[in-house]
Amino acid sequence: MLPLENVKVLDLTRVLSGPYATMILADMGADVLKIEMPKIGDDSRAYGPFINGESAYFMSINRNKRSMTLNLKTEEGKEILRKLIKEADVIVENYKPGTMEKLGFGYEEIKKMNDRIIYAACSGFGHSGPYSKRPAYDAIVQAMGGIMSITGPESGEPIRVGASIGDIIAGIFTAVGILTALYNREKTGKGQKIDVAMLDCQVAILENAIARYLVSGEIPKPIGNRHPSITPFETFDTKDDKIMIAIGNDRLWAKFCSMVGREELINDERFVTNQLRTKNHKEIKEVVSEILKAETADYWLERFDKEDIPATRINTIDKVVSNPQVLARDMIVSVDHPVVGDFKMAGIPVKLSETPGEIRKPAPVLGEDTEDVLANVLGYSKDEIEQLREKGVI
Amino acid sequence: MLPLENVKVLDLTRVLSGPYATMILADMGADVLKIEMPKIGDDSRAYGPFINGESAYFMSINRNKRSMTLNLKTEEGKEILRKLIKEADVIVENYKPGTMEKLGFGYEEIKKMNDRIIYAACSGFGHSGPYSKRPAYDAIVQAMGGIMSITGPESGEPIRVGASIGDIIAGIFTAVGILTALYNREKTGKGQKIDVAMLDCQVAILENAIARYLVSGEIPKPIGNRHPSITPFETFDTKDDKIMIAIGNDRLWAKFCSMVGREELINDERFVTNQLRTKNHKEIKEVVSEILKAETADYWLERFDKEDIPATRINTIDKVVSNPQVLARDMIVSVDHPVVGDFKMAGIPVKLSETPGEIRKPAPVLGEDTEDVLANVLGYSKDEIEQLREKGVI
Repeated sequence: MLPLENVKVLDLTRVLSGPYATMILADMGADVLKIEMPKIGDDSRAYGPFINGESAYFMSINRNKRSMTLNLKTEEGKEILRKLIKEADVIVENYKPGTMEKLGFGYEEIKKMNDRIIYAACSGFGHSGPYSKRPAYDAIVQAMGGIMSITGPESGEPIRVGASIGDIIAGIFTAVGILTALYNREKTGKGQKIDVAMLDCQVAILENAIARYLVSGEIPKPIGNRHPSITPFETFDTKDDKIMIAIGNDRLWAKFCSMVGREELINDERFVTNQLRTKNHKEIKEVVSEILKAETADYWLERFDKEDIPATRINTIDKVVSNPQVLARDMIVSVDHPVVGDFKMAGIPVKLSETPGEIRKPAPVLGEDTEDVLANVLGYSKDEIEQLREKGVI
Repeated sequence: MLPLENVKVLDLTRVLSGPYATMILADMGADVLKIEMPKIGDDSRAYGPFINGESAYFMSINRNKRSMTLNLKTEEGKEILRKLIKEADVIVENYKPGTMEKLGFGYEEIKKMNDRIIYAACSGFGHSGPYSKRPAYDAIVQAMGGIMSITGPESGEPIRVGASIGDIIAGIFTAVGILTALYNREKTGKGQKIDVAMLDCQVAILENAIARYLVSGEIPKPIGNRHPSITPFETFDTKDDKIMIAIGNDRLWAKFCSMVGREELINDERFVTNQLRTKNHKEIKEVVSEILKAETADYWLERFDKEDIPATRINTIDKVVSNPQVLARDMIVSVDHPVVGDFKMAGIPVKLSETPGEIRKPAPVLGEDTEDVLANVLGYSKDEIEQLREKGVI
């Protein structure tokens, strides 16, 4: 059994934030039916890189879903969507606020068709507030939401996080909202609307930066790879490669000093507590750098490992996808795609013991399930389906 | 009604990843009872900045929870925990794998006490695999998991994301697992174990970096604030301040060129498609920079807003907490703390229409609810409670 077996999700999302949310549900066994514009489909089907003409970008985040084409600008397309809404548990969209209303499928309309449905909207700025109707992209919410202002080289320029966490974190929170509403519906029998904004999610992950600013009045700035309040907790050069070390407390500091044969540093008055080490982070950086430069990364990592001092190389993606722990945890998985053949992507990070999620099928080719749904769920005849196709409805 | 009303969570977590997960549940109305070591409590109670001796760090991520002290190294402490486990729906911990087993509370033991319980473990590397028992911190999984290798200035050093997304994303996925298992339990009547690893979660958010590497064989590198496949989609200097612009398609590019009175650029053969603009990103950066440097950030942002071209300043934290959209969405909220007074923190990013989450109370002071739980839930007498306190059990 899959944990979300029999949960029917109508997926009107495109590109990244919404598809990431519905991927989480699909991985857990929900039946996710992706509604796509005939001939074009999800915009990200056009994003490279491509394998045999199929987008690797699209395939990475649409596994386990089915695909049906439907032109929602036609009356017949709308009629088919209304029928599907009556059968669905969840509907998810990531249009700019107002788009669903224009199509005739605002939450108030949808609720009239099915009051048990859970309607989840994931947008740049949310369905309320002065910026609500503004267009947004990942880079905009990363810049507006503060994370860029605390990411970057010490005293340097603010830097965008290299993965689209503006979209992805909103996608995960949208899944949190849907799951919460599904659980609640078991108690009340009623659905509801979920409104998740990418900007809100950026604010929600700022961690102690907000508290630091509100308490001290000092505006947090990029500080490179250092931690703002733990030291030494950053990257260092060795003889050949950089490593990250994370000495989170006095005990680890003492262990480190002993390991490198520099016991006198344990009681050095500049470094004796974490607070002092953080205050004197420039001096400690010099001292530790000098020690670590004498040997290679391999040498140090082996010794750190023996002493249980947290340390690692800064893995590039090639090293990540071949890392023994990553592989042991099934975090790189293969599926067999009908057009592409063997395709690898990230696995499922939520591991359940009794009803685990599963990657059951590759991402669908455009409209793969259109006829199946029309014929077997909605009872359309072969002729009717052919006519819909000719009219460009599907 | 709150969406997770009557869901009882035993919270054995400390510092960030686990507490973030239980904060999500508490915000949605779960009754989260935080079990803390007598006198010391959650390690993060000792993390600055402080207000009237209370940790702002701790208060930011432990609102809506209750606190009970319990020394799990004493037999009486274990006995009390066993009683609480019998009453709980969910138990969450973020110890190093093996710690709960040593205390006598591994999942196999707990399941015997309550087979409906959902046991969620959030750890650095997970409960399986060769690195399972290694110590981890946010910086370690950010470095090992690949995100650092794609974050940083163009051709520069890899950079740690300035918020602890190694912890936070694992916390959100832990909440996803718990909610999935809660829903599933409504169908099966049975609980299960959830095993979330910080490293796994880092792999799960690498987005198209994995696909780009596996398809092309090229190792993705830091590229500053640019997007790897959309152009112009980066930061630019104006006369006075930097701004981020996100021109995601040809239509927006044409709009931009017209707006700045440079229509000839629309059909410039170097820039005519997004693919060409990305290929010629250095030239386009020069051209656009020259245009934008002529006026101030305010001037440009007003014009971009009128034209619906996505653009923004790179907000520092002071600007984030006073941003009109952030405030309109209740993403900065106040609570009245008994020791601290008015305290501000990030709000709830998941907005539900019918049973919204709520910030009902500030973070608990250490052991605030110990006596209430012992007397009113477990039926201990005043004398018995006094004895437990004298023995250091609570």
